[in-house]
Formats: sequence, C-alpha cells, structure tokens
Amino acid sequence: MAEGLNFSRRLRRTPYTSSAEKAGVTGFSIVNHMLLPKAYRRSVEEDYWHLREHVQIWDVACQRQVQIQGRDAARLVQWMTPRDISRAKVGDCLYLPITDDTGGLINDPVLLKLAEDRFWLSIADSDLLLFAKGLALGRGFSVSIDEPDVSPLAVQGPKAEQLLAELFGPHIRDIGFFKFGWIDVAGTRQLIARSGYSRQGGFEIYLQGGHLGAGLWDMIGQAGLAHEIAPGCPNLIERIEGGLFSYGNEMTRETTPFEIGLQKFCSLDGSIDYLGRAALQHAAAAGLSRQIRGVLFDGGPCPTCAAPWPVHVGDKQVGQVTSAIWSPRLKRNVGLSLIDRAFWDAGQPVTVHSADGAIRSGEVSGLPFA
Amino acid sequence: MAEGLNFSRRLRRTPYTSSAEKAGVTGFSIVNHMLLPKAYRRSVEEDYWHLREHVQIWDVACQRQVQIQGRDAARLVQWMTPRDISRAKVGDCLYLPITDDTGGLINDPVLLKLAEDRFWLSIADSDLLLFAKGLALGRGFSVSIDEPDVSPLAVQGPKAEQLLAELFGPHIRDIGFFKFGWIDVAGTRQLIARSGYSRQGGFEIYLQGGHLGAGLWDMIGQAGLAHEIAPGCPNLIERIEGGLFSYGNEMTRETTPFEIGLQKFCSLDGSIDYLGRAALQHAAAAGLSRQIRGVLFDGGPCPTCAAPWPVHVGDKQVGQVTSAIWSPRLKRNVGLSLIDRAFWDAGQPVTVHSADGAIRSGEVSGLPFA
Repeated sequence: MAEGLNFSRRLRRTPYTSSAEKAGVTGFSIVNHMLLPKAYRRSVEEDYWHLREHVQIWDVACQRQVQIQGRDAARLVQWMTPRDISRAKVGDCLYLPITDDTGGLINDPVLLKLAEDRFWLSIADSDLLLFAKGLALGRGFSVSIDEPDVSPLAVQGPKAEQLLAELFGPHIRDIGFFKFGWIDVAGTRQLIARSGYSRQGGFEIYLQGGHLGAGLWDMIGQAGLAHEIAPGCPNLIERIEGGLFSYGNEMTRETTPFEIGLQKFCSLDGSIDYLGRAALQHAAAAGLSRQIRGVLFDGGPCPTCAAPWPVHVGDKQVGQVTSAIWSPRLKRNVGLSLIDRAFWDAGQPVTVHSADGAIRSGEVSGLPFA
Repeated sequence: MAEGLNFSRRLRRTPYTSSAEKAGVTGFSIVNHMLLPKAYRRSVEEDYWHLREHVQIWDVACQRQVQIQGRDAARLVQWMTPRDISRAKVGDCLYLPITDDTGGLINDPVLLKLAEDRFWLSIADSDLLLFAKGLALGRGFSVSIDEPDVSPLAVQGPKAEQLLAELFGPHIRDIGFFKFGWIDVAGTRQLIARSGYSRQGGFEIYLQGGHLGAGLWDMIGQAGLAHEIAPGCPNLIERIEGGLFSYGNEMTRETTPFEIGLQKFCSLDGSIDYLGRAALQHAAAAGLSRQIRGVLFDGGPCPTCAAPWPVHVGDKQVGQVTSAIWSPRLKRNVGLSLIDRAFWDAGQPVTVHSADGAIRSGEVSGLPFA
C-alpha cells in the first residue's frame, strides 16, 4: 500500500511542513485536517532505535488547540469529561477523556490550564471544537471557543532535556512531567510542556505564531547536531510497545474510557456532574465485557493494519487488532486489541487474522509490552 | 509533491476501497477520516474528457451521513441552517449551508428528508455529527444522532442515466434533480438521488449495508462496459470549471454563506429562527466586502494549490486562490478565489502568486467558467 496522497488546501500544511520537506519527509498521515509527517528517508525500525537513544524533532502541529475561555470555561470543560478538573492548577497538563452522553469517547486531548478561565485542549483526530461549540451554544454558556495560531513541535528522546536546556535555559529541567513552563523563542514568550507521544521523555513547544515555525525548527536542528538529532514522528513500534493508544485506532465513539484503561480518570461518586455520568455509572455497575490488551504474535513481520484484524480463540472472535507492527527488539509482532473478558488474561493463546490472509499464532499480553 | 499516505485504521477504508484498489487507484485524499480515491492510472486530464463524454463510478463513501431522527429532528436541523426547510418534502435533497452563531460555515451538506422526523445530512469534511450532538445535548432536544452504515457511490457523466435505467429500471428517469427515489440492489431497497459532485449529470446511490459494496460496484462495472464506464473521482478540472466549491478549500469557519454566493439559501426576514441569524442579518446590512470568483491565469500549467496563493492588483493583495488547475479546454489555468469588492468584476486584471514562485498574469472571471 504505497498509494500517494493528493494534496489540497483542505489538508492543511503546518508552519513546519516546508522544514519537514527539506528534511526529506516521504509520507504523511492526516490528523485534524492537517498534515502529520509519518516517514522520513529512514525505515520505521531505524527511526525506532534512534528515538530510544538520541533526540528527534517532530512536527505535531496537527495537535490543534481548542481554546475555551470566559466565565463558564471551567464549567464547560468539566461538563465534557468524567475527570475531576477542580483541583487542576495553572501550569498543569491533564490527559482528559471526553465523552458524550452515552459514555462513548469523542476525543482524548491533553488539557492545558492557562488561567482559571482559560484552557487549551490539545486534541486528537476529531473536531472537538464543534462539539464544544454545540454544547456551549445549546446551554447558553458564556465562553468563546476558537482554534488559535498554536502549533506544537515535539522534541522527544533521552537527549531532549539536555538539548533544550542548552538552548532555552536550565529552568526547563525543573518542569515536572505533564506540567508546563515558558521559554523565550526569538523574543517571544512560548509555552513548553514536559509531554509527548512517546515513552522516551521529552517536551512539546506550543508555538504561538506560525511565522516563527521555520526559525524554531532550524534553531533546534542546529543545536541538536551535537546530540545526533534527526527529524522524526510518532513511531509506531515505540507507541505500541509503550501501550500508547490512538483516537480513531484503539478508541472511537463506540469505546468507553473503561475499555482503554482510564477508570482512574472517571469520577463516579456523584461529586461532579458531566455529560456521560449516568452512562458510565451504569457501565461500571454492569462490569466490563472487554478491555484493551497487547497481543504478541508470530509469522514474520505483519503488513500494515489498515482495518481491524479479527483475534480468535479457536473459532470464536474475541477481539480485533487495531494497530500492529513487527518489533525488532522483541522479535515478534506487537498489536493492540480490545479483548473479551473471558480471554483477556496475559498468556491466553489466540490467533490473529491479518489482512494478508495469514492466521498467526500468538498470545495476550499486558501493557506496556515488556 | 508525490509523498505517500501512511495508512492506519483511523483513516477508514470504505466498502468500495478494495474494488478501487483492483481498479488501479493510485492516490487518495482523506475526507471525514475516510479514504477518498483521487487518482487512477489515467491523468486528471484524460479523466476529465472521459467524464464529459461517458460515465464513471466514484467511491464517495466519505460523504458520511449524519442521521438525525426523533421528535425534535426538524427543529434541530432548522436551528443549524439559514435555509428555510419548512417546505421540504420527503424525497427532497436540499443543499444546506450550516453556520455557527457568527455566521461562519461549519459544513455544507446535502439534506435528505426521509420522513417528517428523520433526516440525513450528507456531509463535507468536518465532524458535523459532533456539532449536532453538542447542540442537541445542550438544548435538551429529543433526537438521536448517529452515523449509519450508509456509503454513497456516485455514477456520474452523460451516460449515467441510461446505464442505471438498464440496471435498476426506467423509473429512475423520473427522479428529478436533487430528488431521491428507491431501487432494488440484491434484494435490498436502496436510496438513489439525482445528484453528485460534477456538472455532467448522474446519480448517487446511498448504499445501506457495507457488505453489499463490492457487489454493487461489480454490478455497475459489468453493465457499464457497454457505456465505456471507468473508475473515477471528483475531477478537479471539471469541478473548478463548473464553479463547485469544496469545504476546507473555498470555505472555512471564516467564510459566510454570502461570500460563496449562497444568499438565496439565507432567510433574513425573521420568519425562521436559527443560530447564525443575527450575525447574517448584520453582515447583510453591512454589505459584502469579498465574494467568490473565478480567476483565469497564464504561465503554463500551474502546480498543485496546497496552500492559498495571493491574488494581487499591483502591490495590493485582493484575494487568494484556494483551488487551481490547468484547463485543457480553455488552455489557461482556472482558479477559485475570494476577491475583494472593488476588484471582483469580470475582466479585472490580476496577478496570481503561485507556490512555484511564478507571478502569473490573469483576470477575474464569473462562475462557472464559460
């Protein structure tokens, strides 16, 4: 499947796209109507080893910000999520399941609390802005909701902190995990968070002002030379091994937060009110019938998982793999799948019916993969 | 720009994707988180001439349906659009601007009225389902909103009617423009509308039941052999020449219905109530400052318009081209641009600053292009 992507203005370029092109990008995905580089000249496997050892610069501007501000901003955010945000402080990042009235997931953004009455929701791939606007207009909330000119650039990998401390000052070392602080970029004050879509550590710079994008990319690229920096992107091997889920892949509107292991972010005691509360209380009382697990499986490197692959125990379908790839470290394929309750224990033998027609033997695994 | 598309489950395959692959699809776009074939083995120009003469089969399953049903269904739909839907009959298709409270466009679907309390909105590229859900939940409307298993397949071109009459019966000839009727497909009752994203005539079959997709494609493909049928897709030359606009390209949330010529679909006399009414009444009173026009321009075939190109009169920017391509019939480039009022008359000389660095001479044109 090496088909091309046909470009148009509707598939928006980012402030970093030209830089990524100069750096040799060879493939894109589309997230939030925007280009996400997904491949450079090196293989996914080379990229994986590099990310674990060095530092990479990622154009993740597609993580758009839904800015919610105004008198009812906190009220609206709380209404959309089962996670209690009442104790969040300015400077906190909170991973936030967003659900509708059925408890189905609408998005899973990171919330950045900028002020008591101003939030950014750094979104996955669905138009959360439209949901928030609909709710606010329907309820008559006093808020304004927009998508500001903010384009996250991720710096990921074990050398990220050293590199960014050299560039922007040692104070960035004091930023805790899922906290944010501020740096100076070309005379502008910019938000930097210790976060990112990998398990290798790093930061995300929420650049305000697209015209500064190429300069920021070059500045980091130059300073990074001493640290063997390379252009990169969310790495599928590293993401699956690390048990990081992707909205649209592992979860959709058909999935509850419980099913992807987010119980701890769901307030069920009635202390806060939100859209999906009754549905989630009901689901919690009924008990889980399926939940996300890893699947390790054989048969040589598997193809791209472009549509769910059935997972069987004997003749019975017990799940479906939604993301999968060959792990060069584990020397087996690793996949993510919702698995039915009776079969979700680690070690359960299964078969995976991949798109190439192969029936591959494997077993259920805990997450993250060892 | 021949970069590849990296597939994942999140970029959903359609019931016709396998058929399109067998037919030699070489490029995709992404609409509503779903694959839209955008190129087969032939060039866009060959495809253009073929579409004007024969008949084509298009996988437009990405035109997802937002189904709104229940006691308040009509009330919700009316609240989202400035177009008066009170006189719509079951069997009607209505092109529907959807706006928020600022009068900015959220989407421009085709509404299909299935019953007094049941509608499909056949959407362009934004998650209108989330906006509708938000509004309904916020207002407490009694409706259910979902995305049913419905996948439009377009049959477009001057021979479409003859072909479909042979296949499904002569009654389809009686279906008026922007009306729908019913056909039998493999023993199932299926909706067929006289509509489609071209000016060459044709129909769209709103197939319910994805498992029927490959069979329907093959049935039309076989019967179409006698009519020189070919697999195709919305053709950029034909679309621009015909003055058909695309959400995300010619219009965004920054664009009002007036700016893309939809005044006739905007009720401003106060007889109906909808979200954007005050904003649109205000905009109408203030007068239009820019509106969509064609631009004809020289300098040989232009590159792909992947980001807006400035349109100048002398040193002054007066618009931006959002879609453009070489017209083999007019032997000039044709583009679509919002143009400032003082410069929007046909014949106004302009320059177009295309992404290849060229400054191309041209002039403003009415739409559709002659």
